[in-house]
Amino acid sequence: MIERANRALGSFWPLRGVATAAGGSVLELPPRRSLLYVPGDSDRKICKAAGLGADVTCLDLEDAVAGSRKEAARDVAVKALAQVSFGRSERAVRVNSIQSGLCEDDLRAVLTGEALPDALVVPKVDTVDHVRWLFGQAKGLLGSRQRQQQQQQQQGSASVALITMCESGMGLLNLRHIFEACLTDEHRQLLRLEACIFGADDYCASLGMKRQPGTDDTLFARRWVALHARAFGLQPIDQVYIDYKNTHALGAEALEGRGIGMAGKQVIHPSQIGPVQEAYSPDPREVEEASELVEAFEKHQEEGQGTFTFRDKMIDQPTYLQARNLLKLAQRVGGGGGGK
Amino acid sequence: MIERANRALGSFWPLRGVATAAGGSVLELPPRRSLLYVPGDSDRKICKAAGLGADVTCLDLEDAVAGSRKEAARDVAVKALAQVSFGRSERAVRVNSIQSGLCEDDLRAVLTGEALPDALVVPKVDTVDHVRWLFGQAKGLLGSRQRQQQQQQQQGSASVALITMCESGMGLLNLRHIFEACLTDEHRQLLRLEACIFGADDYCASLGMKRQPGTDDTLFARRWVALHARAFGLQPIDQVYIDYKNTHALGAEALEGRGIGMAGKQVIHPSQIGPVQEAYSPDPREVEEASELVEAFEKHQEEGQGTFTFRDKMIDQPTYLQARNLLKLAQRVGGGGGGK
Amino acid sequence: MIERANRALGSFWPLRGVATAAGGSVLELPPRRSLLYVPGDSDRKICKAAGLGADVTCLDLEDAVAGSRKEAARDVAVKALAQVSFGRSERAVRVNSIQSGLCEDDLRAVLTGEALPDALVVPKVDTVDHVRWLFGQAKGLLGSRQRQQQQQQQQGSASVALITMCESGMGLLNLRHIFEACLTDEHRQLLRLEACIFGADDYCASLGMKRQPGTDDTLFARRWVALHARAFGLQPIDQVYIDYKNTHALGAEALEGRGIGMAGKQVIHPSQIGPVQEAYSPDPREVEEASELVEAFEKHQEEGQGTFTFRDKMIDQPTYLQARNLLKLAQRVGGGGGGK
Repeated sequence: MIERANRALGSFWPLRGVATAAGGSVLELPPRRSLLYVPGDSDRKICKAAGLGADVTCLDLEDAVAGSRKEAARDVAVKALAQVSFGRSERAVRVNSIQSGLCEDDLRAVLTGEALPDALVVPKVDTVDHVRWLFGQAKGLLGSRQRQQQQQQQQGSASVALITMCESGMGLLNLRHIFEACLTDEHRQLLRLEACIFGADDYCASLGMKRQPGTDDTLFARRWVALHARAFGLQPIDQVYIDYKNTHALGAEALEGRGIGMAGKQVIHPSQIGPVQEAYSPDPREVEEASELVEAFEKHQEEGQGTFTFRDKMIDQPTYLQARNLLKLAQRVGGGGGGK
Repeated sequence: MIERANRALGSFWPLRGVATAAGGSVLELPPRRSLLYVPGDSDRKICKAAGLGADVTCLDLEDAVAGSRKEAARDVAVKALAQVSFGRSERAVRVNSIQSGLCEDDLRAVLTGEALPDALVVPKVDTVDHVRWLFGQAKGLLGSRQRQQQQQQQQGSASVALITMCESGMGLLNLRHIFEACLTDEHRQLLRLEACIFGADDYCASLGMKRQPGTDDTLFARRWVALHARAFGLQPIDQVYIDYKNTHALGAEALEGRGIGMAGKQVIHPSQIGPVQEAYSPDPREVEEASELVEAFEKHQEEGQGTFTFRDKMIDQPTYLQARNLLKLAQRVGGGGGGK
Repeated sequence: MIERANRALGSFWPLRGVATAAGGSVLELPPRRSLLYVPGDSDRKICKAAGLGADVTCLDLEDAVAGSRKEAARDVAVKALAQVSFGRSERAVRVNSIQSGLCEDDLRAVLTGEALPDALVVPKVDTVDHVRWLFGQAKGLLGSRQRQQQQQQQQGSASVALITMCESGMGLLNLRHIFEACLTDEHRQLLRLEACIFGADDYCASLGMKRQPGTDDTLFARRWVALHARAFGLQPIDQVYIDYKNTHALGAEALEGRGIGMAGKQVIHPSQIGPVQEAYSPDPREVEEASELVEAFEKHQEEGQGTFTFRDKMIDQPTYLQARNLLKLAQRVGGGGGGK
């Protein structure tokens, strides 16, 4: 089926791409269907999580670590980055929020450690001031690292992907300005904004919402975040589904997330990885239909017919682009329904 | 029933109106309940479409025309504007997007042709830069035309209505700035922004959404577009309903659109015109209730009573204004449920 | 149960609080679960309304008063403020909109009367220009009053809470700028922006919406207003439920409002006060669960455990903060389900 996707896309796909209005490209980001949190202070849990096949494994220094364990967690996480094998999983670290007073020490530990993480998750980025502070830190820590590597003619990069978290009313209102500040910062090559996580619990608390199970209470905010992130060519990553025993409802919420434009979902339990990655992978029927549609569209284009009917629907360029997007995802994740 | 609306509104309606905060007025725009696309390269299809009674007939140079037929389509469309009778239907042309590289030639053909269209539909207006480019073109082409007409003391106008399409994440985020740029441009009398179309397919593709039939996957974006358009006194025009065989679901979606503030809907098949125009026309019961409410309110006003109960509900000024708005629409479209 | 909330919150709550990104605090505002309108020109109705136990009693000079009665209403309302006892209810006055031409006289009457109202409700605040005009008036009227009081060494304050109404498309689009203009105005201590009311009927009229009973036609706008208000630490106050005989549906809409972050709801009939205040009060089960959660979280914190499972769910800091917010509301309103 993947060969089918390859054949339909042809060799010109990477040449075309879909440029965003912000000048970026949706093509260059790794899959982030699932982002698994693991307490940053537990060597045992980190080792176990590293082998679970999540697209992103995120060592958490924030909510999962008690105040008294913050320093210990920094040591454990930094050592794990250097010594634990994460397989094909992206290695991320979530630091404490800029407002917490802990972030500066977190960044110093993580960005000067033996091995850099692939990505940095920063919670509660609410204002452009937060962005400026963060890039000031990156300039100091990652800039020094880069100069040192260049002097010693070392391999490797001093560049880290940035994943911001949007989890308050003001964070939502400022989202555009936050993205613009990150993407235009002088040091955007050191700290490369690539994704934005929606944090539902803090968001609901910040809005004083009395959450009601079974309602779409966060749908407005999730759509808002997906809209802003995608407009800038970034990956929006969806809320945690908190009841980890209910994998059926989890799968439904993951599909809903994909329906609103999310690129992936935070997970808090190993059992959540499979259902989430499956929901964010193209299924065989989708791949087949998209392949047929792409082939038919291109055949009609060559024959000079602009519109045609495919399975009882008028097909035009947007529909064709959607089909190509799906084939691209199938190529990337080795699609076909499997979660891994 | 129309006489009833006339009587209830009285002669003072045009004097009052409802000014928008942007300084415009909701009164001066023609009905655009349905906007029918017809391939711009087919003389036969254009002639057929011209007689179907859609409020707007839009000769499409974009998605409905294959790449190899673009030049032919310009010729066919320009001739049709001059020679075909469109009855009471507004004559619009959809050019290719500014990003496509085809728009400049499209505009030159359409705006220098023998007969100007009533309206110009421009797809994928995503940024203020797009607006500036577009008005630069209008200045050159329509400005020359205007000067030429004045020199030759010809009748007619060199002014065209502008209908922008909003169909990407960045297009949504920039909507306010796009409208403000159009409405304050030096040449806003040559190219008069009057409506904004929401393009669902391109929007969903730009957000990487996996569309799920039967869900309200575009409702957030449609409300966003309706809100922005109405705030500036413009007509928001709703998404295409793609399954042209299901006129029942089409009618429901049209009613939903009217419920969120849309002024009309794009249609892609002759069978869609009737159901859509019916959904966007006031029904007799509405006209009757609104007439009674308006009369009762004005009677109570004269008698010095501020609030009163009408059919078990407290009635105040906003409700009164809504009723007057409905009567106005009935006057315009010759209401009463008929689709034409 | 209240003692339980007190015990769980401990004495440190007021010291911590939850600062908003705008620098404000959610702690300092009085409960505004229900805001009852009463016609400002009826002494009899005002006296009756004053004893009904609504959190806010609002003497209406706008929609509830016919054009011919505006001047009479000013006199009646100003006298009522000085002479009628409103018990524990906040005393508010709704003036006519700035656009109406009546607002200047309204403000002069109300702000120079013997007794100031606690709060001023201003309808249809659509633009920053409206804000500037309003604060210009406040500067003149309340500034003079303040100087006079200081010269005469009188007790009392010349400061009034401001509650703006958001009820048009442009009002929604400008909401952030309206709030920022109020909160940064030089005279923000004289006119203290504290809440924002969503006015559904005028909003729907301004968007040309054909309202359909039983649909969530205003949910997008209500979420928009709640988001903006809460981001600035303000209280969003929800739409009127117009069918005052259907208290069951009223209660459901009030709960929905609380679910989206509203702090209270406008009411237009005495029978609406109870159901609305009950919906916006924490129930005993919520208070008990929140108390247990807060106690357990703090115990685990002391023992150095970051995450733990409480009633089958992973509990982290955001959830803890939500629980504390609820206990705080219970303390304020004397919770436990009672409407009063």
